[in-house]
Amino acid sequence: MLMAHDPRPETHRDLPLADGEGLGLDTDGLTALRQAVKAWREGAVHESYARVPARRERFTTWSGIEVPDVATPLDGPGDYLAELGMPGEYPYTRGVQSTMYRGRLWTMRMFAGFGTPEQTNERFRYLLREGQTGLSTAFDFPTLMGYDSDSPRSLGEVGMCGVAVDTLRDMEVLFDQIPLERVTTSMTINGPAVVLLAFYVALADQRGISRKKIGGTVQNDCLKEFIAQHAWLVPPRPAMRIVTDMIEFCSQEVPRWNTVSISGYHIREAGATAAQELAFTLADGLAYVESCIERGMAVDEFAPRLSFFFDVHNDFFEEIAKFRAARRMWARFMKERYGAQRAESMKLRTHAQTAGVSLTAQQPYNNVARVSLQALAAVLGGTQSLHTNSLDETYALPTEEAVTIALRTQQIIAEESGVANVADPLGGSYYVEWLTSRLEREALDVIRRIDEMGGMVRAVEKGYPQREIARSAYEFERLLNSEERVMVGVNGYVTDDRGKIPTLKIDESVQRLQVENLAKVKNGRSAVEVARALEQVRDAACGHDNLMPPIIAAARVYATEQEICDVLREVLGTYSDPAEF
Amino acid sequence: MLMAHDPRPETHRDLPLADGEGLGLDTDGLTALRQAVKAWREGAVHESYARVPARRERFTTWSGIEVPDVATPLDGPGDYLAELGMPGEYPYTRGVQSTMYRGRLWTMRMFAGFGTPEQTNERFRYLLREGQTGLSTAFDFPTLMGYDSDSPRSLGEVGMCGVAVDTLRDMEVLFDQIPLERVTTSMTINGPAVVLLAFYVALADQRGISRKKIGGTVQNDCLKEFIAQHAWLVPPRPAMRIVTDMIEFCSQEVPRWNTVSISGYHIREAGATAAQELAFTLADGLAYVESCIERGMAVDEFAPRLSFFFDVHNDFFEEIAKFRAARRMWARFMKERYGAQRAESMKLRTHAQTAGVSLTAQQPYNNVARVSLQALAAVLGGTQSLHTNSLDETYALPTEEAVTIALRTQQIIAEESGVANVADPLGGSYYVEWLTSRLEREALDVIRRIDEMGGMVRAVEKGYPQREIARSAYEFERLLNSEERVMVGVNGYVTDDRGKIPTLKIDESVQRLQVENLAKVKNGRSAVEVARALEQVRDAACGHDNLMPPIIAAARVYATEQEICDVLREVLGTYSDPAEF
Repeated sequence: MLMAHDPRPETHRDLPLADGEGLGLDTDGLTALRQAVKAWREGAVHESYARVPARRERFTTWSGIEVPDVATPLDGPGDYLAELGMPGEYPYTRGVQSTMYRGRLWTMRMFAGFGTPEQTNERFRYLLREGQTGLSTAFDFPTLMGYDSDSPRSLGEVGMCGVAVDTLRDMEVLFDQIPLERVTTSMTINGPAVVLLAFYVALADQRGISRKKIGGTVQNDCLKEFIAQHAWLVPPRPAMRIVTDMIEFCSQEVPRWNTVSISGYHIREAGATAAQELAFTLADGLAYVESCIERGMAVDEFAPRLSFFFDVHNDFFEEIAKFRAARRMWARFMKERYGAQRAESMKLRTHAQTAGVSLTAQQPYNNVARVSLQALAAVLGGTQSLHTNSLDETYALPTEEAVTIALRTQQIIAEESGVANVADPLGGSYYVEWLTSRLEREALDVIRRIDEMGGMVRAVEKGYPQREIARSAYEFERLLNSEERVMVGVNGYVTDDRGKIPTLKIDESVQRLQVENLAKVKNGRSAVEVARALEQVRDAACGHDNLMPPIIAAARVYATEQEICDVLREVLGTYSDPAEF
Repeated sequence: MLMAHDPRPETHRDLPLADGEGLGLDTDGLTALRQAVKAWREGAVHESYARVPARRERFTTWSGIEVPDVATPLDGPGDYLAELGMPGEYPYTRGVQSTMYRGRLWTMRMFAGFGTPEQTNERFRYLLREGQTGLSTAFDFPTLMGYDSDSPRSLGEVGMCGVAVDTLRDMEVLFDQIPLERVTTSMTINGPAVVLLAFYVALADQRGISRKKIGGTVQNDCLKEFIAQHAWLVPPRPAMRIVTDMIEFCSQEVPRWNTVSISGYHIREAGATAAQELAFTLADGLAYVESCIERGMAVDEFAPRLSFFFDVHNDFFEEIAKFRAARRMWARFMKERYGAQRAESMKLRTHAQTAGVSLTAQQPYNNVARVSLQALAAVLGGTQSLHTNSLDETYALPTEEAVTIALRTQQIIAEESGVANVADPLGGSYYVEWLTSRLEREALDVIRRIDEMGGMVRAVEKGYPQREIARSAYEFERLLNSEERVMVGVNGYVTDDRGKIPTLKIDESVQRLQVENLAKVKNGRSAVEVARALEQVRDAACGHDNLMPPIIAAARVYATEQEICDVLREVLGTYSDPAEF
């Protein structure tokens, strides 16, 4: 039943694409409309192109979907209550809250982290003072890969692209003076997410804050690592087991925690189209759901804490449509395929980030314009949380000035543009509804193929999504080289000016400082306690016990991230990508 | 007949606002929908606010229109073919061209001018090299007021906020190496527009370019000067006569020239709401139409060359709706009130400029975000031409770097966002259609009041629009002071940083240079010819002959702008504002 061959719930099967059926129009109205559109296309459009030829042969979205010259009531949205419904109501096309941003604005959550925990703590507190409403932690490369700052593998990377966190001590400093019970914290980490979450829970325990009161997200989306990002710790199947352990643990112990942030972002940045991002991300989500169900959990126990993370790329309407399609698809899968009963299980809540790959090193202030348009698309798409890229992110980690402009961009959208006044303001737009259904249909076709392969874990092992993304990335490069796609300042509107801007330099003393601190921690802890705690992690890893409790216990006695990860790697194995050759 | 008391064409009278009639839904569908919306509002919304209270008591557009929490099919657009129709077809709600930006992108027209004609010529050619597609000339204050650079009134103002143009010689330099037959040129000037247009025509004659081949726009909207901008030359009624002379002349001699750019921009910048901008601008347009009809011209002779100029302010959807409402209203007025037959007479073509008053001196790079959102709104509203403000315009005239970012913003929208692929992509959006009809209704109420007063000239003489705008401006200040409206960086999200940016300095030698050049021109011309030419201008002004031919003749012998304007002031009188006390 979980692997039905047509993955599309019954309501998906006949999408109202450009046929005008199901609109509730009477036959006369429909006939008149069809005739008017036909006459217009054969007459006015024809004449117009005779005077002013079309600028291109085909008009396509940034992802390559050919779009109509105009959309009309014939193009959607079909049966309003079935396809859209009201905001906060099934199938949630129009948003997951009924009052949307009238109640609470999206969380303005700037991804931040560099250098030592002290330095990032300072940036965190700066952002909170400037009106940011949630924290988002960027870890350095060693931390992301499960290595300590004193590892030979970490040389030259400590604190460079994120903050270095080796032990619970670093977390104590990172969140110094920040009330864990009053902010939500997102941690972008995957393979070693189980360790970092354990650090955070141990920190809350240490401060006497109830686990029921802390909220946040770990990215923890192991599948997309195999597909796109390559920061894995162990092979796919044990990785699924760790994620499932975390979901199970949190559903009991840390109920406000988003246990997985099912991420399309990196899939998209690797070159996927919008429809592929949608398909692979939801398919990853379905795999986590199935893993939890196989573990014996009830869908309504864990599904409410699954969250998503999408890219917001250049094509304004395609991106808006993607968010809307994602909600409708997820709701139907959860209800119809898995029999979810609780509304919270059906609601796709998401974070969004403007597209890193769309930024240009050339004429960097142009990036402020790009980010503004992308951020607006995310908000019109109904995101719950948003990171806006800083204009200098192609050069370096953002300066305080650059990150402030990016945050102000969100605040301008929230305060000045008026778009937060009304839920789903684009609902009903013939074009947006057409594009929503179109992306949904494309993504459902991909999900059907994945189902036919036996699900996403198997598809990943076979390298299917990896190959499909590579193909799209190649096609995009071709379009860019042939100038069918123009990126302003890159292959069009080029100027000599490289736009010198101030950039943030990470002091080379960071590694030395961090290694010294780690040595102090190691000297100050009980080697016996650490060894015993790691042994218990090993026992759990070898058997079937949930990994979270022993890892939290290890965190508490200041075992390092790498020490814990090494145990997991040893017991659960390592991995190399089948799509690489 | 021209002054009918209900100005609304029959089709305007029952706008489908929030009632669901005229949607073509069958009774069952309508009933189900009404019930669903009612149940949602009484249930889900209520519960949602109980959990998360609303951020404000009322949610209003930037102009103060209270907006619904969500819009549904019940809110519009009603009868599709009657209210929207196809792009390029009556009533043009969806745009004036059937293929819209697929054929030709909007004209990217950056308003530029400073210093001497040489300096502005250099900026013009820079902008054309960088991909701008039309010219737009900013004149200095003395030129706008009809005074030469050597007038005592001009002291300290020559070349400061625009380029100084005194005689045909300056025009020769200003357009040096620019092919008049291949660019279109907009000239933002009003009271003395007749003189500047004469200079331009004389320049074309001098270069042997047919008058039939030159294209462009003079702002020439005397009515809005009395309402908002205060750069008038003569009182309202003689001003109307000059405008009518120009329309009449161009409809015969310079058929590609847009004779009036009926301007809401300055009305809005002075503090009007979006609906007032819409109402006063269209009412000004109706006054020009009536003046021409009274002169004995056929509506289809001159109406195709009337064009418009709107502001694009902060409230994203309100601005989009304003453009759409403007087209529908103008088309219906032209067809139903004035019996226009030609489609070109019914099509409202417009230039747009992002809102100068929305820019902040604080944190100036935030302006790039504002301008991006506003520019996108103009494009989604279907503008034919667009100026994007530079981030430094609150400080000074834009630097080359700043104007390039502003131009690139348009190019990013054109090339990267995909919004130019589809005509009227927001058509059908329940909210946008609701807001379009709502603005239309508000504006029609204002136009009815103006009709009752006897038309716009009379209303201006009574100070009616002036007072209404002052009232709105006052109300906006109140909202800002009470922080019901937040401008980021001004009364919220304030930082110490004043964001030092490089600004353009106008060299103080400009006035000296310009006065020297003017002296050379005066020394080189024939005093007798000038005196004779000015006498012929005087004769025409005293009588009923069209003013354009004698002013062109005066231009040709290098009579100065002020010499010609002085004659007009002497014969036709001067004016002071009835609303000032």
